[in-house]
Amino acid sequence: MQHRGVTVWLTGLSGSGKTTICEALEKELRSHGCKLEVLDGDIVRENLSKGLTFSKEDRDINVRRIGFVSHLLTRNGVIVLVSAISPYRSVRDEVRQQVGDFFEVHVSAPLSTCEERDVKGLYKKARAGEIKGFTGIDDPYEVPLNPEVNCPTHQETLKQSVDKIVSQLAEAGYLELALA
Amino acid sequence: MQHRGVTVWLTGLSGSGKTTICEALEKELRSHGCKLEVLDGDIVRENLSKGLTFSKEDRDINVRRIGFVSHLLTRNGVIVLVSAISPYRSVRDEVRQQVGDFFEVHVSAPLSTCEERDVKGLYKKARAGEIKGFTGIDDPYEVPLNPEVNCPTHQETLKQSVDKIVSQLAEAGYLELALA
Repeated sequence: MQHRGVTVWLTGLSGSGKTTICEALEKELRSHGCKLEVLDGDIVRENLSKGLTFSKEDRDINVRRIGFVSHLLTRNGVIVLVSAISPYRSVRDEVRQQVGDFFEVHVSAPLSTCEERDVKGLYKKARAGEIKGFTGIDDPYEVPLNPEVNCPTHQETLKQSVDKIVSQLAEAGYLELALA
Repeated sequence: MQHRGVTVWLTGLSGSGKTTICEALEKELRSHGCKLEVLDGDIVRENLSKGLTFSKEDRDINVRRIGFVSHLLTRNGVIVLVSAISPYRSVRDEVRQQVGDFFEVHVSAPLSTCEERDVKGLYKKARAGEIKGFTGIDDPYEVPLNPEVNCPTHQETLKQSVDKIVSQLAEAGYLELALA
């Protein structure tokens, strides 16, 4: 599969399904031989942002660092899959401007669904006040206004989400899909 | 020019000529159409490491972050030019292991020469005690034991340094030089 460099940025609440989509998308694109890097929020915190807190200021710095690295990779022809809550609109838009080839995917399960799933048990802790500044509970999540793709994971299957992203990437000229 | 991904890591004292070589090398390689990124110490501090000090611990973190980004780019076929004092041998070697395709250039003007040049006036400040922990004055510079190339900039011209690096990169199989 021929492709151009692009940053595919998955944003959404904790538990919305970003990592799950990211992993499936990675598998799908790798099977077509795409040049690809995954910048998962946790990996980046470990390698680029250790010591940063979850304050608004530090979250913004973290997102900017992911943006900086994504930009370098993207302009060298790599497809970069970013999975990060990235709750604030302004810094996401700042990264969009910087990277240029930026493809925003809103993983949009509602808070009630994410909280019900609570895969990591974090919502429970946030409700109990054990974690402060938790996105969706006592810190805002600012919904993307014009994401390239919206994936309401409470209403569609994983395959549907991935297929939609792949076909929209092709539509936008980033992938050249072989005819089936 | 055909090439493979590699990290060219210029290490040496402040004022040794790393940035000068880096810029000339960038120009030379770009003229051959190489895919290239420059990670200059100052740019990286701004984008990845703001807030870090010049303590040994923080310097190591900074070098590891440059290493992390270099690795991502290198394995995607990019030539990465890094220009950073990177005074400690152990963390340079750690990055060498991580990146794999790692090409160390020791820019080896002696302290006396660097101090005489004192382009940024930093040595003067360090001698006066206005800057603490300055490499070469009151903080060590650990000389590379087996660098791929050594550039004693007090004894050779800029062109000689650049030519040497380019021919050694070709020798090591990273560049395929067209026959003149």
